[in-house]
Amino acid sequence: MGAKREADYKGRLRGLRTLLGDKLDALLVSDLKNARYLSGFTGSNAFIIVTRDEAFFLTDPRYTAQAGEEVKGFRKRIFRKALDEISALVLEKRIKALGFEAANLSYATYRKLAKALPKARLRPAEGLVERLREKKDPFEVERIRASASLLDTGFRKAARLVRAGAIETDAAFSIEADLRRRGAEAMAFDTIIASGARGSLPHGRASGKRIKKGELVVVDMGVLRDGYNSDETRTFATGRLKPRQREIYGIAKDAQAAAINAIRPGARASDVDGAARKVIERAGYGKFFGHGTGHGVGLDIHERPSLGPLSEDVLEEGMVVTIEPGIYLPGYAGVRIEDMALVTKGGCELLTKTPKELVEL
Amino acid sequence: MGAKREADYKGRLRGLRTLLGDKLDALLVSDLKNARYLSGFTGSNAFIIVTRDEAFFLTDPRYTAQAGEEVKGFRKRIFRKALDEISALVLEKRIKALGFEAANLSYATYRKLAKALPKARLRPAEGLVERLREKKDPFEVERIRASASLLDTGFRKAARLVRAGAIETDAAFSIEADLRRRGAEAMAFDTIIASGARGSLPHGRASGKRIKKGELVVVDMGVLRDGYNSDETRTFATGRLKPRQREIYGIAKDAQAAAINAIRPGARASDVDGAARKVIERAGYGKFFGHGTGHGVGLDIHERPSLGPLSEDVLEEGMVVTIEPGIYLPGYAGVRIEDMALVTKGGCELLTKTPKELVEL
Repeated sequence: MGAKREADYKGRLRGLRTLLGDKLDALLVSDLKNARYLSGFTGSNAFIIVTRDEAFFLTDPRYTAQAGEEVKGFRKRIFRKALDEISALVLEKRIKALGFEAANLSYATYRKLAKALPKARLRPAEGLVERLREKKDPFEVERIRASASLLDTGFRKAARLVRAGAIETDAAFSIEADLRRRGAEAMAFDTIIASGARGSLPHGRASGKRIKKGELVVVDMGVLRDGYNSDETRTFATGRLKPRQREIYGIAKDAQAAAINAIRPGARASDVDGAARKVIERAGYGKFFGHGTGHGVGLDIHERPSLGPLSEDVLEEGMVVTIEPGIYLPGYAGVRIEDMALVTKGGCELLTKTPKELVEL
Repeated sequence: MGAKREADYKGRLRGLRTLLGDKLDALLVSDLKNARYLSGFTGSNAFIIVTRDEAFFLTDPRYTAQAGEEVKGFRKRIFRKALDEISALVLEKRIKALGFEAANLSYATYRKLAKALPKARLRPAEGLVERLREKKDPFEVERIRASASLLDTGFRKAARLVRAGAIETDAAFSIEADLRRRGAEAMAFDTIIASGARGSLPHGRASGKRIKKGELVVVDMGVLRDGYNSDETRTFATGRLKPRQREIYGIAKDAQAAAINAIRPGARASDVDGAARKVIERAGYGKFFGHGTGHGVGLDIHERPSLGPLSEDVLEEGMVVTIEPGIYLPGYAGVRIEDMALVTKGGCELLTKTPKELVEL
């Protein structure tokens, strides 16, 4: 194993500058994940301003030392009041058209900024850094891979704990505790352990229900490690299943395989969704698959691209997406199988590796 | 013990309507904590619109059943697209001046709303529901009390685990696991266990440092239970201390006692801060106490009022605030002692009850 890869922050800034286009002299980055992506900063208060030829990193005095260690290649400013420092910088650098992250900045903050900068043209910008974040570079792939691999250990534990007689929340707690001990910073979302009829719920967070014999149990978990998320679902069987349960498991598995098979650079996200959906529809369960097939994963647990029927995204090499078709029969059972796939030159590579064979223990 | 108290949602709506004043026909609530406060809804997607004589609760189809159970006294609308439903409702009810939560709503959402409602007057409103939330009703006090009491069990465990030889993160992990097992939904923030010189760091999240003999160890934790936060800090000693360490501990403890003593309905928050600050300043450590004395706690871990030198807040019966003066000597040691205080008619009641006597084990 070589040394840990370094992120190419200079390349990211270059990429962002090409997105500024003719309309923006600079972009104010207020979303913390975007700021981390551009600078490597892991603290909880920062702004970045990227002009055509300079990049500024702004944080408060608590983070002076941390920014010194983590952030390279930026001019740094330490602020008492963020808006004062941002305004001063915009005036000093004579920035006319300042883009801001409209989906992140609150209306109240926007108004304060507009008041402080009556002569600047504040331009709502959306999804600029997010667009860069769609394609993962080797630094990110390495981290996502490590996050997914850690998550696989959680599923190995789940395979032992998800048994008839166990309480859903007890199993969830033991798995989470183990993942934390092994280096997870946090779970990426509330762990779903949904047994029996609960498996058909749209959000079956682990409950006080006791798992019974002969149930399908949907386990959907994610961890955050080193800033990067992972996301995986397996459906376990507790003892011998009925033919219907076995049938929907098989269909979901085939649907997932079809979608995985459709992944390649240039493929339309809606076609990848369609590949899974067609398998489920042909088996007569189309109306029991009510969500999209997947989504991007990275610094955020849900990010671009989106893999649904209406998506206009096109897959590119380096994207990391989930593939997670499911079938949910209300009051009866649910099944979902989810992996993370890295789009590669030749197709894709699965980053989550827990076995998918149905074992009726 | 009686049955669990019910929240007075009707009273809360009445309170909010008095805050609409003459300028607003209705308020759009987009902050989820505020929506929970007004309706009891614990899901992750909801909007509320309160007019002078009606109250509407809007959520998506995943939450139809949950809203049915949790939310009473509202007309409910299930949306596919939130903004479409909000706009339709504003038109239908002929709402002219619609307040929105400017600190919560993103600029992008504001713009979409403004486009969809060209004839409505969108009015930025700030802190209306937050103002109501400052004073806790008996329902909330019961929950905050339970959250604080759970947190005390974490400090009992901390008193056993924070010993010379232990690693900070190991101790934090064991305490957190125990709290989760006992019913904490989550920790309210990253647990701080900062031993020795680390105690002087402004944010001393538990690290890989091994705790040594003769150190002061700052432990600052909070839990979320049943939607309500708690927040408490104790500083432990690992073995015999030096006179200087003992001195700053005593000063911080006296400062905290002075602030607690100053709490009563009608007291200015800045005077409560001043009571603690004066003790530390007179002892010559004024410049080593660089933060405010406390803050409100409830659905949010930090909420109104603010107890700092510049605060204009005035304490009222039913407020719950932290009292947490500290002394931080860079490179040497830190001490902070924090309790949660409920403002009562006669003064205050401490909701956190872990002993504060310095034990040099």
